[in-house]
Amino acid sequence: MTAMGTDLGREATGDQRAVRFYPPAYDIRVETVSMPVIVDPDDAVIKVTLAGLCGSDLHAYRGHEEVDVVRTCGHEFIGEVVALGSSFNPNASERPLLYSTLKIGDRVVSPFTVSCGECHFCRLGFSSRCVFSALFGTPDLPGGQAQFVRVPKAGGTLFKVENITSVLHSGLSDSSLLLLADILPTGVFAALQALQHPKITSLLCGKQYPHHGFVPRYVQLETTPNLSFDDRNFTFAVVGLGPVGICALVSLLDMLGDVPAINYRVVAIDPVASRREKVKSVLAVLTPIATPPRAVVADIEEGKQLVKDWTDDVGCNAVLEVVGNNSALLLAYEIVRPFGVISSVGVHQAPPVPFTGRDVYKKNVSFDFGRCPVRAMLPIAAALLLKRQDVFGGVGEPASLIDRIASFNDAVAIYEVFDKGGCGKILFDPWKN
Amino acid sequence: MTAMGTDLGREATGDQRAVRFYPPAYDIRVETVSMPVIVDPDDAVIKVTLAGLCGSDLHAYRGHEEVDVVRTCGHEFIGEVVALGSSFNPNASERPLLYSTLKIGDRVVSPFTVSCGECHFCRLGFSSRCVFSALFGTPDLPGGQAQFVRVPKAGGTLFKVENITSVLHSGLSDSSLLLLADILPTGVFAALQALQHPKITSLLCGKQYPHHGFVPRYVQLETTPNLSFDDRNFTFAVVGLGPVGICALVSLLDMLGDVPAINYRVVAIDPVASRREKVKSVLAVLTPIATPPRAVVADIEEGKQLVKDWTDDVGCNAVLEVVGNNSALLLAYEIVRPFGVISSVGVHQAPPVPFTGRDVYKKNVSFDFGRCPVRAMLPIAAALLLKRQDVFGGVGEPASLIDRIASFNDAVAIYEVFDKGGCGKILFDPWKN
Repeated sequence: MTAMGTDLGREATGDQRAVRFYPPAYDIRVETVSMPVIVDPDDAVIKVTLAGLCGSDLHAYRGHEEVDVVRTCGHEFIGEVVALGSSFNPNASERPLLYSTLKIGDRVVSPFTVSCGECHFCRLGFSSRCVFSALFGTPDLPGGQAQFVRVPKAGGTLFKVENITSVLHSGLSDSSLLLLADILPTGVFAALQALQHPKITSLLCGKQYPHHGFVPRYVQLETTPNLSFDDRNFTFAVVGLGPVGICALVSLLDMLGDVPAINYRVVAIDPVASRREKVKSVLAVLTPIATPPRAVVADIEEGKQLVKDWTDDVGCNAVLEVVGNNSALLLAYEIVRPFGVISSVGVHQAPPVPFTGRDVYKKNVSFDFGRCPVRAMLPIAAALLLKRQDVFGGVGEPASLIDRIASFNDAVAIYEVFDKGGCGKILFDPWKN
Repeated sequence: MTAMGTDLGREATGDQRAVRFYPPAYDIRVETVSMPVIVDPDDAVIKVTLAGLCGSDLHAYRGHEEVDVVRTCGHEFIGEVVALGSSFNPNASERPLLYSTLKIGDRVVSPFTVSCGECHFCRLGFSSRCVFSALFGTPDLPGGQAQFVRVPKAGGTLFKVENITSVLHSGLSDSSLLLLADILPTGVFAALQALQHPKITSLLCGKQYPHHGFVPRYVQLETTPNLSFDDRNFTFAVVGLGPVGICALVSLLDMLGDVPAINYRVVAIDPVASRREKVKSVLAVLTPIATPPRAVVADIEEGKQLVKDWTDDVGCNAVLEVVGNNSALLLAYEIVRPFGVISSVGVHQAPPVPFTGRDVYKKNVSFDFGRCPVRAMLPIAAALLLKRQDVFGGVGEPASLIDRIASFNDAVAIYEVFDKGGCGKILFDPWKN
């Protein structure tokens, strides 16, 4: 079976349709290109059933990445295995699970970056910095906005849908499962980085800092003073309400709803009115998890004012920065409190970080930056995906993250509209006319 | 008693000797100035028995603080209570402990900043950002390099030596206890921020990230994969080996020595040969806690090479930055691994933080910046002070942090030598001729 898969891969030298980016900027073309083939024994070739368009695709589209190479776009996809390299066989039981269990025809979700599952970083849970890491849709690795895509280190990279859904005791739609490729784990990561920081976790546990995290054994943890209920008031902000921002907001509310004996409020900030409307629809669905409503949607000025009013001008315990530019970082800094945490999952580019040494020293700010390790977030993200199908299950409903499923024929126009903030998340069905 | 103390304070309008800084730079004068008096009911006046000279005193001395005001220097001191405001009385039992128990004649250590013990920040453990925070030795608050010093919010700010030593079942010298004012808690803070970060703590516990810190209850923690012993290898660096850097190094080694079933190495980096020699002497004393030696002292180039060699070019799990300039931050970034932590306790000034957005995103770096909350670190720092009297107990020995105890008569010359890195830590005895 595996060998046949390999042969199928090597023989599959026909043509396919793909969405391609031409530098320097704003030039998307849907073209016929050759099929991917197995080039390494650890490769798989996937027939793509759905591929997402993500806000970070716009970095290349707008010419911010300063790379002069044509590439096939897209880093979010779900599909079916059509070819496997020779590494995939029942004897590969010493390797990551899928090297011995993945079969032709299996439904799989791919995280947006390659991870081998075997290097030091993968073993520790830091899969987004795997030594073989590569981002789909870059000059190094053709993306998923195509009918077929090659996945390197596929036994470490891919999730088998069957394994996820069997854990969840439920079948989920392709459009819902596709959210596990990037945006839902990234949202979970944004929220978890904030809540796991010892400056926050200690307080969530009702204890004075530095109760939580590693503490030398000769310090009596039980003597850490308890906080009064008045001190267990938390204020958070989510800056940026694109699809990842919504995932971060839903993750944060869900996690906070799980903490006993605290009070909390979240302000969700975006300057774009249509995004705020979308979030209001999402919150209307979420309300049952928290009455009175725990989250308020605001533009930038309203958001700053709410944080002042709610906290007596002290600021937020943590800010989730889900934009990836310096305006967002500066806003996060402005509204975070001393000893607060900025969890930044935005994809930042060439400009210098916009703070002086004195800024960061005088406020005791903690920052977590960088790319989501999708595999480490999967247990939480998959559980949340099932739990909040009211948000993550639908397409085209007011509270859905996904606006619609489109054909490649509309790709050029969709990139243009998406770039201008004129639509929410769009998925491509590469087989739709 | 208290009332008498108050009166003593108000009446103490005589003169005293103090070390004063004259802007713009490099101008220290020992002068006769008026005695401090109680100006607020929460004040105490302390007769200083020892006052420290600290590396961060050099920021003002070198003219980096751009403040055009003469001030009494010094933010580290230990002494004896000679006057108390009217807030100090047995009926103040609803307030921080010392408002009802502090008496004239008590020996006290003062943290280097004022903290009320009652505001939101103090209640949460973030005493260095108290709403009444003020740094001794600045234009706002005369410092401790004087015969007497006024301490605002003294019932929240001061430690009573009797309370510390009774906890420790030991008496300690003034010169040793003075280390609790700033440099030992700050060193503990540098180490603890690194080890408590969830990117590090999970691994210290032998578990894949993100095992540690807040985790939603619907995620089964026990399913987090265990790390093999090979993956429980840790590499740390301490950048900057002044007195605070030595405290950070000793704290880090002590805490790591307390973690079961890990392997670890620490590189201690400083470009100044005399500082490296001092650290070698300290390590010679510390060796019994870890055989083979866990720490190696290096200059910058040697340090980079050691990190490469030890980690196969992966980098340090965490770097403790104990300098406070951009060269140190850049070195920390260079030698930290992806998903590593930079714990910065250096006092940073006006220059922008020296990283681009892409730098911090692509390495998934976490940063903790800012001033040590001395009170929150006191339980650990006090325990460590007792445990490591071989380093923290002596004066003038090769492994001592404190070089000597000097007279104010030598202050001008000592500032000059200290500025050039020509001596280690000096304490002033304001009563010595």
